[in-house]
Amino acid sequence: MPEQDAVDVIIAKRDGAALSDEQIDWVIAAYTRGDVADEQMAALAMAILLNGMTDAETARWTAAMIASGERLDLSAVTRPTVDKHSTGGVGDKITLPLAPLVAACGAAVPQLSGRGLGHTGGTLDKLESIPGWRASLTNAEFLAQLSDVGAVVCAAGDGLAPADRKLYALRDVTGTVESIPLIASSIMSKKIAEGSSALVLDVKVGAGAFMKAADSARELAQTMVALGAAHGVRTVALLTDMSTPLGLSAGNALEVRESLEVLAGGGPPDVVELTLALAREMLSCAGVDADPADALRDGRAMDVWRAMIAAQGGDPAAPLPTARETHVVTAAETGVLTRLDAMAVGVAAWRLGAGRARKEDPVSAGAGVVLHAKPGDAVRAGQPLLELHADDPARFDRALAALDDAWDIGGAALAPTPLILDRIS
Amino acid sequence: MPEQDAVDVIIAKRDGAALSDEQIDWVIAAYTRGDVADEQMAALAMAILLNGMTDAETARWTAAMIASGERLDLSAVTRPTVDKHSTGGVGDKITLPLAPLVAACGAAVPQLSGRGLGHTGGTLDKLESIPGWRASLTNAEFLAQLSDVGAVVCAAGDGLAPADRKLYALRDVTGTVESIPLIASSIMSKKIAEGSSALVLDVKVGAGAFMKAADSARELAQTMVALGAAHGVRTVALLTDMSTPLGLSAGNALEVRESLEVLAGGGPPDVVELTLALAREMLSCAGVDADPADALRDGRAMDVWRAMIAAQGGDPAAPLPTARETHVVTAAETGVLTRLDAMAVGVAAWRLGAGRARKEDPVSAGAGVVLHAKPGDAVRAGQPLLELHADDPARFDRALAALDDAWDIGGAALAPTPLILDRIS
Repeated sequence: MPEQDAVDVIIAKRDGAALSDEQIDWVIAAYTRGDVADEQMAALAMAILLNGMTDAETARWTAAMIASGERLDLSAVTRPTVDKHSTGGVGDKITLPLAPLVAACGAAVPQLSGRGLGHTGGTLDKLESIPGWRASLTNAEFLAQLSDVGAVVCAAGDGLAPADRKLYALRDVTGTVESIPLIASSIMSKKIAEGSSALVLDVKVGAGAFMKAADSARELAQTMVALGAAHGVRTVALLTDMSTPLGLSAGNALEVRESLEVLAGGGPPDVVELTLALAREMLSCAGVDADPADALRDGRAMDVWRAMIAAQGGDPAAPLPTARETHVVTAAETGVLTRLDAMAVGVAAWRLGAGRARKEDPVSAGAGVVLHAKPGDAVRAGQPLLELHADDPARFDRALAALDDAWDIGGAALAPTPLILDRIS
Repeated sequence: MPEQDAVDVIIAKRDGAALSDEQIDWVIAAYTRGDVADEQMAALAMAILLNGMTDAETARWTAAMIASGERLDLSAVTRPTVDKHSTGGVGDKITLPLAPLVAACGAAVPQLSGRGLGHTGGTLDKLESIPGWRASLTNAEFLAQLSDVGAVVCAAGDGLAPADRKLYALRDVTGTVESIPLIASSIMSKKIAEGSSALVLDVKVGAGAFMKAADSARELAQTMVALGAAHGVRTVALLTDMSTPLGLSAGNALEVRESLEVLAGGGPPDVVELTLALAREMLSCAGVDADPADALRDGRAMDVWRAMIAAQGGDPAAPLPTARETHVVTAAETGVLTRLDAMAVGVAAWRLGAGRARKEDPVSAGAGVVLHAKPGDAVRAGQPLLELHADDPARFDRALAALDDAWDIGGAALAPTPLILDRIS
C-alpha cells in the first residue's frame, strides 16, 4: 500500500518528528519512480518547510537524491577537479570568466549548469547568445572537453539526481521553495552527483538574492558545506553581497561582453574582485598553487575561454547580438547614488526579455540593463543612470515600472560596503 | 497565470497570514474546475493544518465550498427539516433508528450520507446489507420520499459541494485530514448544501473517535455550530463518549439487527439513550413538541423504518445476511471489564471485512464483532467476551492481532462514565 506509507511519512513530519533513514530513502525513491504522488510530495515539502529537518535528515535526504540517479566518475581526468555554484544574483556572470581562469591555472572545472527562471539570469542562457554555442553534450564529449580544455559549462543531463529535478519543479509551483534543508539538498545533490572533488559556493545575500538576510544565507552556507564534507567533496562557501547588481550589466549577450572585458584584463572592479576571490578558493580546494591574477593578465584565461567556446560549437570571434532598441534613464538630481536595488534591476532585465517567466519561454540574447553608475558614484542631474535594451520597445514601460523607486540619490558620500561578507569552511 | 496566483495563496498561508475572501473564493473555485492542481491544494492544506485558519477564514472557506455546487431547495417539504451528523465512531448505528424515529414524531429527516473508510462503518454500507435496498436516488425521488415518508438516508449526489468531494479525497492521501478548520468546513459544507433547516451534530470523543481529546472535540463542535448559524441552519452539538463501542455490535448487518431491536422498543441501553437524546435535540431544533420515547414504545418509529426501507427498494421483512464463520474470544480471568477499546474493536471489524481500506473495496454484509460484555460488567474466566464474524476464517488472525491489549479486567467496580459529555449550541 504505497499511499499508506507515504501518508505515514507525511504525518510523521507534519507532527514534528525526524524522519528515519528508511523513510527518507523510501520516499525519495518512490517519488522518483512515481509511487508517491506529486500531491503527497507537495504536502511533505510544506511540512518540511514549516517543521524543518535536522542536519542528519538533510544529509540523508541529499544522499537519497544523489542515489536516485548516476554519480559521474571523473577519475579519468588527470587534473584536480573543482566546481563553483552561485545561489543566483543579478548581473552574476562570474562563471563565464571564472571557469576558463581556473582551468588556465591547472585545475579542471566541470560545471553542469541551469537556465534562468525569474529575475536571475541563467549561465546557459548567457552562453547561448554566442553564435553556434550549444549547451548539450554527451557524457563522452563532456569528459573529453574536461580533459582537453580543462573547462566545460554545459546542461546537466537527465541522469543526475532525477529526484531533485522532479522535486524542484514541484516546489516551484507549490510555494515550497524557501526551505533551507530543501534548497541545500537540491543544490548539493546535483553538485555532488556531478563528480567534482571540490566545490566553492557563492552564497548571495541581499535585495537581489534569494536570501535577503545574512543569518539565513550563513545557515544555508553552513548546511551546504557540511553536506559536501559528508560526501567527500571539499567545500568552501563565500557569503557575498547582492544588494546591488554585480558589474555594470544584466542580460545575456551584455554579460558575455562584460566577461570578455574581465578576461582581457579589464572589466568592472567588483566582477574582477569576486572572480579572483572565487578562483583563489577553487585553486586552494583543488590543491593548485597559482595566482589567478597572472592568468588574467597574460591572456591564458582568454585562450582557455576561446577553446572552451569553440569546443561547444561557438565562434568566439563572432559579433554578439544586440537589442534593436535602447532607452536611457537619467538621474533626476545631483548627488551620490546611495542605493541601486538589485531585485528591481533583475526584474527590469527579465521584463525586457533577458529572462523567462516559464521554463518553455524563449529569451532575448540582446535584451537587458546597462548601468552607468553604481552605489557610491557621484551623479549629476540629467546624466544617464541606466540604459534599457530590448528588441520590442513596448517592453520599456513594464521595465520602467519595475524600476520605480529602484535607487536613491543622496547628499552625502557612501561608506563603502564589502563585496565579500564572510567565508565558511 | 493560475499557478502564480495559487503560489501566492499558498505562500500567504505558509507565512502565517489570514487569506482574504477573494483568495479563498478563487482558490476553491479554481481547484474545483482544475486550474489549481492537486499538488498545490495539498501544499495549501498542509499549510492550513499547521498554521490554522481564523473563524472568518473557515466561514468563507465553507461558503466557497457550498458555492462550488448546488444547495438543495427543500421548501416544498411541508414538515420542518432537521438532520443529524456524527463525526464517526465504532458501532455508531444511531442514524438507523434515529431518522425514522424523528420522522415518526413529525419532522422530516433528509440525510445524505457516506460510505465507511477505515475503522468506522458507513451508514450506507450498513443499509446496503438489507436485501434490495439502494443508496442512490434522484433529486425528485429524494424529495418525494422526504414528503411522503419523512425520512431519507441516501448517497449524496455529485452536485453537492463538489469542491469538498475533491478536497476530501486529496486530504485522505496527503496526511492533511486532522485539521479542525478543514474537518468543520468539510462536514458543514455538505450538510448546509443538503438544504436542511436545522442540524444536530454528534461529536465523538475518545479512543475510537477521530478526536481523542475533549478539548479538540469541543473546538470542532463550536466551529461547526458557528458555521451552521452563519448559514441560517439552527445547529446544536452533543459531545459524546467514544472510548468504547456504542451498543453490542460493530458491522453492517449486525448493526441493522441491533437498530431493529431499538425500533422494537428494546436494544442496548447506551444506543437507546443516545438515540433519544439526539431525537430530542432534533425535534427541539425543528420546533416539534413530541416525546420520541412514545414513538419507540408504540411502534410508530418501526412503521416509518419499514416505509423508509421499502421506498428505496429494500425488503424490511427479508432475513439479514450472516457471516459464514464465527470465532469466540473468552475472558482469561474473573473480574470487572474496566476497559474495552473502541479503536481496537473498530479495526478488528474492519479487518473481518466490515470496512474497507480503499473506497473501491467491497464490504462484507455479515462480518463484524459482537460484544458479550461492556465496560463495568462483571466477567468470569472462560466466558465469551467477543464474537468475531467473517466470511473467510483466514481473517480471524488479523482481527485478533488488532484486539491484542484491547481490554482490561480488574478487581474493582468501575465508576460509571456519562455517555453524553457536553452540549454546545
